[in-house]
Amino acid sequence: MSHDYAALTPETIAPRLGTLDVMRARVGPPATWQVREVGDGNLNLVFIVTGAAGALIVKQALPYVRLVGESWPLPLERAFFEYHALTRQAARDPGSVPQVHHFDATQALIVMEYLAEHIILRQGLIAGIRYDGLADRLGRFCARTLFRGSDLHMPTAQRKADLALFAANVALCDITENLVFSDPYFDASMNRHTPGLDRAVARLRADLDMKIAAQHLKMAFASKAQTLLHGDLHSGSIMVSASEARVIDPEFATYGPFGFDIGMLLANFLMACCAQPGHADTPGARDAHADWILDVAAGVWEVFVDEFTTLWRTERTGILYQASLFEDQGHALASERARLDLLAEIWRDTLGFCGVEIHRRILGLAHNADFERIADEGLRAACEARALELGRALTLGRASIADMAAVTALTRHITAGDYL
Amino acid sequence: MSHDYAALTPETIAPRLGTLDVMRARVGPPATWQVREVGDGNLNLVFIVTGAAGALIVKQALPYVRLVGESWPLPLERAFFEYHALTRQAARDPGSVPQVHHFDATQALIVMEYLAEHIILRQGLIAGIRYDGLADRLGRFCARTLFRGSDLHMPTAQRKADLALFAANVALCDITENLVFSDPYFDASMNRHTPGLDRAVARLRADLDMKIAAQHLKMAFASKAQTLLHGDLHSGSIMVSASEARVIDPEFATYGPFGFDIGMLLANFLMACCAQPGHADTPGARDAHADWILDVAAGVWEVFVDEFTTLWRTERTGILYQASLFEDQGHALASERARLDLLAEIWRDTLGFCGVEIHRRILGLAHNADFERIADEGLRAACEARALELGRALTLGRASIADMAAVTALTRHITAGDYL
Repeated sequence: MSHDYAALTPETIAPRLGTLDVMRARVGPPATWQVREVGDGNLNLVFIVTGAAGALIVKQALPYVRLVGESWPLPLERAFFEYHALTRQAARDPGSVPQVHHFDATQALIVMEYLAEHIILRQGLIAGIRYDGLADRLGRFCARTLFRGSDLHMPTAQRKADLALFAANVALCDITENLVFSDPYFDASMNRHTPGLDRAVARLRADLDMKIAAQHLKMAFASKAQTLLHGDLHSGSIMVSASEARVIDPEFATYGPFGFDIGMLLANFLMACCAQPGHADTPGARDAHADWILDVAAGVWEVFVDEFTTLWRTERTGILYQASLFEDQGHALASERARLDLLAEIWRDTLGFCGVEIHRRILGLAHNADFERIADEGLRAACEARALELGRALTLGRASIADMAAVTALTRHITAGDYL
Repeated sequence: MSHDYAALTPETIAPRLGTLDVMRARVGPPATWQVREVGDGNLNLVFIVTGAAGALIVKQALPYVRLVGESWPLPLERAFFEYHALTRQAARDPGSVPQVHHFDATQALIVMEYLAEHIILRQGLIAGIRYDGLADRLGRFCARTLFRGSDLHMPTAQRKADLALFAANVALCDITENLVFSDPYFDASMNRHTPGLDRAVARLRADLDMKIAAQHLKMAFASKAQTLLHGDLHSGSIMVSASEARVIDPEFATYGPFGFDIGMLLANFLMACCAQPGHADTPGARDAHADWILDVAAGVWEVFVDEFTTLWRTERTGILYQASLFEDQGHALASERARLDLLAEIWRDTLGFCGVEIHRRILGLAHNADFERIADEGLRAACEARALELGRALTLGRASIADMAAVTALTRHITAGDYL
């Protein structure tokens, strides 16, 4: 396994990985293996290897962006960051990510649990499927990974070591920095949008308040190193079954602001909601599903706050807001006030990031299947135009929108076409 | 030079450093060397080595905190961070720091320029000496080092590499995190204060707003990795002559918020101002000097803003607020608005850090000569009590104090005894 890097193919999986103990034990003898390449993301190769004993996933980074091609090189080291993020997420929220069985840095390759029962959440949302307990699982994942990866909980020497480790994930941060925060707001070369949106796009790009806000948020993303982020927590990075959810693909992991992952996640639920009319067989047929999606979005934030609060009261063992200064001095009330301040800051950041994530999925390089699957271009443009306005309202309103009730009310009005 | 670490003594300097080319060239033959240990700081050994050809400074870290003793170990690696900070400061604001001639990581030793004409600024402020152009030089130093060490200017891969490098400066960050932000606000074991302050101290430690604010600022210090800080920019880290100023001792260097260095610097000017009555031979004899110190404090901020603005307009080459999004789109006004937003945020942080720095110098472990040199304990306590109130007013008022005119007016009222 110490060869130079070479991309795997279905044919080379058995010869190259057939000697790995974990593959033989969990998949079976290599002679029984069947291999299917299923990568539908933007970056990597993903193989399902099935055999007499079971199945595993083999994920391998390519030295370029799969979505674009070899003209856009991308370092293989992203597998290293994905591996380290997965191990930390598994420790901080057990059961939330696929189990990792093997990592090969040279081959940029991770062997992990195959989730046979699961599909990509985004596909489920488009198909109109409901998942019980989804908000609980995702809200808890955010609270646990974000709280436990910060100076609220970790020994700070360890947090600083992780900050340094993930600070080397330059190439993937560069994608976020450019594609999320800058490209959507000017005529960047890789941008594309649905033709009917020309006027809406021109209006947004002439909106100085929005452009300034996006750049302030970019600064926050790049420099507010509060906790270890998943970094790409959209509905395509979540796999769901009837009974559970797993978070995958954390190769964008980096230290950043608490609000980033939650903001991106909320954005993807809100876009799914805005896209529902495009998936309705008859007008109104998806209204209830859109409502359910909004409930999930609201639930994610509520569960996040509840779990964050529990962790604040029980696991605040880091250098910040120490019990020795608060509870131990009879000042537990001050600790609660500090928590509310911090949650208010996280809420503002969440809304800010939520808005730019919506914009970049409609105006930038990487679009969402939620909208892309809407065949009728006029209908797609109408759904996207509403989402663009929603994104703008959330980012620019981030200091005044009080709670999720205000967000869902705003979303309902906009999706009802009230303001367009 | 690859021996194990051993602390230097005046007697071992010539035998151990006599083979270094730079020492022979700039000091002269070792037989002519005369050595004086002059370290008056809290941490290190500092030797002036004089010889037939000139003089140099040899600074060596000790494996413990000099102020406390061997019971408080402190890693020698701080010399490594000091060396790397000095080279970056020299590049970002040429002439602002002593020239470095030699670095030995194993011996935790830096050989640098001897500033024969200079004294420590704090001593000058206590002695009632004025320095022309001081605000210009310090304001420029802050603007240039802070702007040019951030994603406003640097290639972000290089900034992220430096972020990772300085994230290893854990032990010295730990000192700041504890001694500046936490210890002053409860009865920590290393604290001490002038006896007459008991009631003021009790009042401050019962002040929940102040305690919460200090912890929010600690979080900002620990996680807002905007730029490379000096990390300990007080008037004891600045050497002055009639014609220039040099900044020394950046071993606390780390990535942190723009406002930290400036806030600490302002705090030390404001404390110098509050302490002036304690150094007056006759009542009022130091009023003019206190006024001059306030003018310098105000000038530092003004020059910082001016220079930051110039750099924003001419050297904004980093990933943040790119010209491609603003000026290149005919949106130069939006770039100016973004700059004003950012300066407003830096101003709030500056005031916040300024207040806690004042508190910790009066209540914590490391006190200031400005107050310590006041022999009359009652007078010292009175000066310190005013400074404590000023610190509280600045930190808690950081969102509403508009400008330096408000800060100097507040300081004049408080030092006149208006509110105590």
